[in-house]
Amino acid sequence: MTAGMDFRSDNVASAAPEIVDAVVEAARTSATPYGGDPVTERLEPAFSALFETEVKVFPVVTGTAANALAVAALTPPWGVIYAARAAHVENDECGAPEFMTGGAKVTGIEERCGKIVPAALEAALAAAGAGEVHWSQPACLSLTQPTEMGQVYTPDELAALTGIARRHGLAVHMDGARFGNAVAACGASPAALTWRAGVDALSFGATKNGALAAEAIVLFETGRAADLAFRHKRAGQLLSKMRFVSAQLAAYVADGLWLRLAAQANGQARRLARGLEAVPGATLAAPVEANEIFVTLPRAVIEGLAEAGVLFYLWPETDPQATTIRLVTRHDTETGEVAALIETAQRLAAGAA
Amino acid sequence: MTAGMDFRSDNVASAAPEIVDAVVEAARTSATPYGGDPVTERLEPAFSALFETEVKVFPVVTGTAANALAVAALTPPWGVIYAARAAHVENDECGAPEFMTGGAKVTGIEERCGKIVPAALEAALAAAGAGEVHWSQPACLSLTQPTEMGQVYTPDELAALTGIARRHGLAVHMDGARFGNAVAACGASPAALTWRAGVDALSFGATKNGALAAEAIVLFETGRAADLAFRHKRAGQLLSKMRFVSAQLAAYVADGLWLRLAAQANGQARRLARGLEAVPGATLAAPVEANEIFVTLPRAVIEGLAEAGVLFYLWPETDPQATTIRLVTRHDTETGEVAALIETAQRLAAGAA
Amino acid sequence: MTAGMDFRSDNVASAAPEIVDAVVEAARTSATPYGGDPVTERLEPAFSALFETEVKVFPVVTGTAANALAVAALTPPWGVIYAARAAHVENDECGAPEFMTGGAKVTGIEERCGKIVPAALEAALAAAGAGEVHWSQPACLSLTQPTEMGQVYTPDELAALTGIARRHGLAVHMDGARFGNAVAACGASPAALTWRAGVDALSFGATKNGALAAEAIVLFETGRAADLAFRHKRAGQLLSKMRFVSAQLAAYVADGLWLRLAAQANGQARRLARGLEAVPGATLAAPVEANEIFVTLPRAVIEGLAEAGVLFYLWPETDPQATTIRLVTRHDTETGEVAALIETAQRLAAGAA
Amino acid sequence: MTAGMDFRSDNVASAAPEIVDAVVEAARTSATPYGGDPVTERLEPAFSALFETEVKVFPVVTGTAANALAVAALTPPWGVIYAARAAHVENDECGAPEFMTGGAKVTGIEERCGKIVPAALEAALAAAGAGEVHWSQPACLSLTQPTEMGQVYTPDELAALTGIARRHGLAVHMDGARFGNAVAACGASPAALTWRAGVDALSFGATKNGALAAEAIVLFETGRAADLAFRHKRAGQLLSKMRFVSAQLAAYVADGLWLRLAAQANGQARRLARGLEAVPGATLAAPVEANEIFVTLPRAVIEGLAEAGVLFYLWPETDPQATTIRLVTRHDTETGEVAALIETAQRLAAGAA
Repeated sequence: MTAGMDFRSDNVASAAPEIVDAVVEAARTSATPYGGDPVTERLEPAFSALFETEVKVFPVVTGTAANALAVAALTPPWGVIYAARAAHVENDECGAPEFMTGGAKVTGIEERCGKIVPAALEAALAAAGAGEVHWSQPACLSLTQPTEMGQVYTPDELAALTGIARRHGLAVHMDGARFGNAVAACGASPAALTWRAGVDALSFGATKNGALAAEAIVLFETGRAADLAFRHKRAGQLLSKMRFVSAQLAAYVADGLWLRLAAQANGQARRLARGLEAVPGATLAAPVEANEIFVTLPRAVIEGLAEAGVLFYLWPETDPQATTIRLVTRHDTETGEVAALIETAQRLAAGAA
Repeated sequence: MTAGMDFRSDNVASAAPEIVDAVVEAARTSATPYGGDPVTERLEPAFSALFETEVKVFPVVTGTAANALAVAALTPPWGVIYAARAAHVENDECGAPEFMTGGAKVTGIEERCGKIVPAALEAALAAAGAGEVHWSQPACLSLTQPTEMGQVYTPDELAALTGIARRHGLAVHMDGARFGNAVAACGASPAALTWRAGVDALSFGATKNGALAAEAIVLFETGRAADLAFRHKRAGQLLSKMRFVSAQLAAYVADGLWLRLAAQANGQARRLARGLEAVPGATLAAPVEANEIFVTLPRAVIEGLAEAGVLFYLWPETDPQATTIRLVTRHDTETGEVAALIETAQRLAAGAA
Repeated sequence: MTAGMDFRSDNVASAAPEIVDAVVEAARTSATPYGGDPVTERLEPAFSALFETEVKVFPVVTGTAANALAVAALTPPWGVIYAARAAHVENDECGAPEFMTGGAKVTGIEERCGKIVPAALEAALAAAGAGEVHWSQPACLSLTQPTEMGQVYTPDELAALTGIARRHGLAVHMDGARFGNAVAACGASPAALTWRAGVDALSFGATKNGALAAEAIVLFETGRAADLAFRHKRAGQLLSKMRFVSAQLAAYVADGLWLRLAAQANGQARRLARGLEAVPGATLAAPVEANEIFVTLPRAVIEGLAEAGVLFYLWPETDPQATTIRLVTRHDTETGEVAALIETAQRLAAGAA
Repeated sequence: MTAGMDFRSDNVASAAPEIVDAVVEAARTSATPYGGDPVTERLEPAFSALFETEVKVFPVVTGTAANALAVAALTPPWGVIYAARAAHVENDECGAPEFMTGGAKVTGIEERCGKIVPAALEAALAAAGAGEVHWSQPACLSLTQPTEMGQVYTPDELAALTGIARRHGLAVHMDGARFGNAVAACGASPAALTWRAGVDALSFGATKNGALAAEAIVLFETGRAADLAFRHKRAGQLLSKMRFVSAQLAAYVADGLWLRLAAQANGQARRLARGLEAVPGATLAAPVEANEIFVTLPRAVIEGLAEAGVLFYLWPETDPQATTIRLVTRHDTETGEVAALIETAQRLAAGAA
């Protein structure tokens, strides 16, 4: 077995030293609890500067909490949340959005590599029966940026979808569990990819990109903040020593660290993609834009990779005979790791041919 | 202003170096997410050894989540949770137990210094209408150990209350946000204070006693674990990098650290109590058994303490004219801090006389 | 056993012929479903005329649904509903308010014969921690008119309580399961007893006073109607053949029928109260203002009544040794029934003496 | 406009005289509330006889309540309910199943004329991730009998689907809003179409087939009854004068009335289908097995029918350019009404040609 070829997910990553240091520093002294500490108090100014508009920030410790609380702030119990079929809010939260909204529905919309097809969203909304009491009511559009297949929506693509949402009275949530990878990949500003493109609330992820456990719900529609404060508390996400999460977020966005970390992950993904494209029988199932690679391979190669100790997920995960695999690079993925994987795949492909 | 006389709460404390080190160590390397890592996997054996019985452990990041999920594991939506009137589950969770159970009721029972009066519990259950479809149904007893007034239930006191609960078919939860302080104070074993005394699920707190943000739901009634796993996930408490919480819990219970930290806090509380008892006009409102002191003082002294920069809460917090204050000592409370407070109080009392 | 001395509750009553006739008439023909029928469409004009202001009306089939949906329209999931300790919303709905609000709390307030003590409400609100994220937030005052002990709030008494509510930002609900008995008893207009006295939403009961199964949520704060329509549907209270409920409500309020029926019940209660006052050893536990009598009697008399076949409830119901009983008169209670009960009580009291 | 050609739905129907008489009879006298009356008490024996096994019966007033409470009795908050895409539980309850389960998901499965495709159910379950904490868990299969397109599952078809459900640990619910039409159509016994075919809970509808407002949740899996009693109460479906619903249900199943009424509706549907098949340009979109006809027609004919005063729904309802319409016959649909519709369609088709 070749050591260290772990491409399962960026949530297996180590934490970035700058972030660990910030936690250690925060641990040295005592501080006012429940977010009354100086580190937490500086978060909103820092995020407001980063996003070039006044925002409200709610630190949480999981993407599940960020997503479910954010959509709950935007959706009544009788609402419908529209999301790509592969989206986390639809598939991977064990019903957290349904739970935290008090029984809303999540409806999956047709997608291309995770990007919602505008015409499909239009069609769903046209048939949604707005105002009709027998039907759950259109309330929220949730976009994943980058998508579950690692694609980055451009500001124009976002505006097209959020424009449809606005015309039908929907609020807009963005699941940015890997938001840093999107920004680093496309070069557009955080503002351009969010509120300027019509986003009301963002799940701003840090955990997958170098933090220990830190996500922020960033509210652009700040009128929702008063209610969200109570939801946040009663969901068990208001930490008494909130400073330990805030310190991670503060260090993460300071001096562009988050974008440097994301750029490292994205760079390894591009390197890996180029290498795999040269492997006989390999085809990329989607363009590689951020830090996820979806590659279709002969079953023999897939099995060989697993035997060689490469860690990855089949795509879809539930199909044991899948011929596509997902590979994720991290801020701490090493070039040697990538090279070893490419070499292993080439060797296996040669043997299979 | 005298620097550093902070007696607001143990949740303002710094983190213990051993616990910080464990987090830093866990941050160095990558690991399987969602609790599949070695640190998390060792938690259940460690806690099973600590409690001398097989337990299931669910790490969470807040006492709110620990309490609300634990009672939700024990209570149907139409259930009643009985707790002391001052208990956190009744007063301080912004309705988290009601939320996570799906609409159960919390009923406050008469207490003495936070200890539920057995006869009052009996009376409430006798009048509860078990089996009567019009009434929410008795389901759970929640005990706080030590109580909100810092009192430690003895094993016999616990058994008396849990015996009543059993006879009426209730499950038993213990809110042990300061469980370490209770064990350190009374010398009974963790087992004697929990399952041997009839407790089904424990909120085992570490945050107030040296951790950064770590609590564990410890299930003695392990049959409830399968369902709780889903509740835990959908409440946003299943961290992808769970190892950072698990590492805190593992370090906390290793080599008796938790009891050493608690003993420090308890020792400073005893020292402070002795000092305050000697202050003219001061009366302890409750025996000091763990790390909380409730002391009744002339208003002039209370106001003088606030002016001198001593940080504390009035009791009850909502009464601006209260003549009792709550003082909490921490694992990192220094002897000088305690001495300064006593001296300040004595000076003020002398001036007031 | 003396036949027919049934004083258990007005919910055992027969239906009034006028109401039955309206149902029979509605059953003859087909009609647009879900409230699009002419009978339902005339309800809002009729109730608006009755209450002298524009109202929105939501027909439902139980008091539980009326109360729980009405308070859910006024209370967020993190809200507190204040009610008299004996109120149905606190005691008799198996947690329906908690369920339909998504986890709000109901807090019982000190009462005198069911009337909330204003000072106790003030004290509860002063200690409620409005705006404090750790605490469920004051949201709704629920008043029962007449109270659970048959007392009728005057417009001034209502205004005193709703004034406190307003100053603290609470909405006001009135549980009028026996609203007709209150109006018939005190002579004040429906408007004077509701919106003019600060009530936002009324559970307007008909079932206990001659209907088959019909209650109306009457919204004075009509801005809440749009959301309530969805709650009403998803709670299973939007009947496809809504006209069968609407027909009951329409007949009930037409030509003063509801007040005639209530006056009959109230009259029998007064007659019964006068008779019982003359029974040696009997004391009224509360003034008889509507159609409920609470009378304290020697245990021997209470047991004798039960043996004689009189149907009634002990008060409190859960105390098998109670010395107070509750007697309820109905629109169809006969004078002979009342006379027989008085006679039986007198005979038993004489024997007991 | 031709009078009376109302083919919108069977929920516009009049009530059957036998059922109205039973209500009138129940209204004459007083009775024990909350289902303690003799009429309600005879329901379970009557339904147990009808279904040839011991059942528990919960009367409710809407199909929404029947369906949502029944699936809530079978599904945890983190569960998934599988249903045909067109099923009421997925489409027409404004999220009532999500609400009453506490946040479960409803997943639509591929269907043919409303019948779930077994292979599609198998595929969904294979990909469902049973036991995987990140995903809502397979819990319940909900079948509509007859389907939303009026098709009747045979006992073998049911057994095939419930067999799949069993192998995956799912409970089975049947939405029988028109169960009488199914039984009358296929001749199989109520038992053969329910518990003998693997059904645990049935929404047994009467409202669409001659009742005023009456449905019964029939539990074959009687172990779920204790919990359901509390859900039933707190959902506001436990009527104090329950006898008025019970009387409808009792009259409905007495002496085969329900099957006679259903046979009348089915007979008119067959007559109508035969007539429409002879109309040039008309095609039945699904076989006519119960009391619903789906017929594809030239747009000019559809518009002409609407202008002629025929009442019907487009299919799908949300598509204003649909070329298929839904026609529903009722127990009280008259032969003249059917003849008039056929004649109108023929005339319009001739004109359009």
